[in-house]
Amino acid sequence: MEIEVTQEKLSKALNNVSRIAVGKVTLPVLNNVLIRVDNGKVSLTTTNLDMATVVFLPVSSSKDGVITVPAKLLSEFVSTLPRGEKIKLTAKDTKITISAGKYSSVINGSLADDFPELPEINEKEAVTFKMGVDEFKNGVGQVIIASSNDYTRPALTGIYFNTHEKTLAIASTDGYRLAEKKLVKNVQSEINVIVPASSLREVLSAINDGMDEIEISFNEDLARFRLGEVEVISKLIDASYPEYRRLFPKDCNISLDLDREEFVRVVKLAALFARRSAGGAIVCEAKNPNIFSVKAVANELGENDSIIETEIKEEGKITLNSRFLIDALNALTEKQISIEFSNQVSPLVLRAKQNSDYTHIIMPLNS
Amino acid sequence: MEIEVTQEKLSKALNNVSRIAVGKVTLPVLNNVLIRVDNGKVSLTTTNLDMATVVFLPVSSSKDGVITVPAKLLSEFVSTLPRGEKIKLTAKDTKITISAGKYSSVINGSLADDFPELPEINEKEAVTFKMGVDEFKNGVGQVIIASSNDYTRPALTGIYFNTHEKTLAIASTDGYRLAEKKLVKNVQSEINVIVPASSLREVLSAINDGMDEIEISFNEDLARFRLGEVEVISKLIDASYPEYRRLFPKDCNISLDLDREEFVRVVKLAALFARRSAGGAIVCEAKNPNIFSVKAVANELGENDSIIETEIKEEGKITLNSRFLIDALNALTEKQISIEFSNQVSPLVLRAKQNSDYTHIIMPLNS
Repeated sequence: MEIEVTQEKLSKALNNVSRIAVGKVTLPVLNNVLIRVDNGKVSLTTTNLDMATVVFLPVSSSKDGVITVPAKLLSEFVSTLPRGEKIKLTAKDTKITISAGKYSSVINGSLADDFPELPEINEKEAVTFKMGVDEFKNGVGQVIIASSNDYTRPALTGIYFNTHEKTLAIASTDGYRLAEKKLVKNVQSEINVIVPASSLREVLSAINDGMDEIEISFNEDLARFRLGEVEVISKLIDASYPEYRRLFPKDCNISLDLDREEFVRVVKLAALFARRSAGGAIVCEAKNPNIFSVKAVANELGENDSIIETEIKEEGKITLNSRFLIDALNALTEKQISIEFSNQVSPLVLRAKQNSDYTHIIMPLNS
Repeated sequence: MEIEVTQEKLSKALNNVSRIAVGKVTLPVLNNVLIRVDNGKVSLTTTNLDMATVVFLPVSSSKDGVITVPAKLLSEFVSTLPRGEKIKLTAKDTKITISAGKYSSVINGSLADDFPELPEINEKEAVTFKMGVDEFKNGVGQVIIASSNDYTRPALTGIYFNTHEKTLAIASTDGYRLAEKKLVKNVQSEINVIVPASSLREVLSAINDGMDEIEISFNEDLARFRLGEVEVISKLIDASYPEYRRLFPKDCNISLDLDREEFVRVVKLAALFARRSAGGAIVCEAKNPNIFSVKAVANELGENDSIIETEIKEEGKITLNSRFLIDALNALTEKQISIEFSNQVSPLVLRAKQNSDYTHIIMPLNS
């Protein structure tokens, strides 16, 4: 195997694949990157068994062959070489020689036979669609914050891609809060898959400034995300997702509009007290005449009660985890937001005032 | 006690003092900042018993008095308030009220009696001198990297300020390497004090862009660093410093010049292999004809042997800790550097080629 390529291109490609190469002690080959040249087409692949990242590398010259090499060592070596250098990689048996100008090194790798490659997606059976990278990135970013780290309930550690009334939505919940974003309208196929949040984080990391479009494919047990020369392939989570739309409260007594920046500030001020003495719990209260107040529950540190003036039609209050509320307010980027709740019994619903594509729901705390 | 001041000024001052306010469980008042208004002069003080930071705060109006309040809570509260707000702090007994426009909060503090203030420096007995902030910052930065974290040898956890042939030098060593910088020439007083490295790190953190000059005072057991409105007062380390000048090798067989950037690169390349398999050990070798080579010792990962062309008069080699060498090369900012050594037996000496104010010495590893 032989490749000639510039330092910049190789370094960027290795940087993209080496993130997930964190070998388990039981399977050290997962530390490695698989470098394959097949009919002049060069690919670099890493995997953690649940997902794989593949980068296709345009090179100036090559000879077919395949090898696996420690990914982080090779990546750091190449990134330390001077920019602008032409790099030559030559594999022989289990050794790879890296030459660049006056620098030359040999790294011990291993045969490609032991490398566990993920299956490829079956193009015929797959549902494939394309969308703008920015919409994808923003939407996944808004939803992924509500996903769970609790692997005893695997479904909740993923993002649920699902079609409903011809719209593709993504949703995520950890049982305490729920976020849903309507991503693509007029979708003809039916989609119901759970993609691991960790795989989607990897997809987000692979997004670069120059990218416009993402191609997403699902089949029965795999998802594939194509971004220019980078491809992330992930196993799907084999579980059924809770029917989350049932959690959307139907009738809320209290509904009001707030300036997002002002709301964030009063919640942050209350949270400074709340997280030190009340497990982060704060009380939001709508009261006449036209006052919305936010304060920390129970407080040995002092008293903090901030108010925002806004139109109040109905009085009521709700106790919430301040961190969840700050997360939700950070996910909403619009200037004006609307909130709805029903006096402690049902969840708080947050949306942008002018745009209902994104819904964030937070369960109340007992108080 | 009462103060009126802008959000920006108060936030900056609190930020400066709250860094060291990390209360020990046995003495929770160390979490607090002491706010004192004395004859209209406002000061904020925090201490960790070994050192104290005092910030003098110019305010638009005030009433005398004193209180202590949790430093981080007050600092975070003020930094969350909107920029440009006028803030009013009012203390009554052990409570402080913070008002800013429509925001108002009460923080529970404590009486100032329990706050352990450091003694003041005795101006008459003190040696005081001034120097440029940039020279101070660079010099301390070059030397502090060689200080030790081993509190069983307290002297080595400090920076040794000492006069020698009318020059004030600062030096630091952890027993494996030593750095010395000549800081001020034509000093008339004699100085021999050890300042804790942790206190000097605090002084470095207090340096802002607008500052030109630092005033440094020492007396028998205290050091004081004045930077505009910030004052750092530190206890000195009561120990005798090793006679480090004896460690400077007198005659080195081998002496050569290197481009610093090129040297850093070859050491980094070798270190990638060395730190994974040889405890970071690398071998630097001067050999004819005019080749300086750097490689990792013992290597299961592969082979790396980089060379730099430079004039070699005498052959020889030395085994070194690659991390120490990278630290030293990062501390030297000049383009051309000179190194000297004597074939494994005596230390490596690094200096800028054109400037001998800074000397860095690294002990060889046994090989």
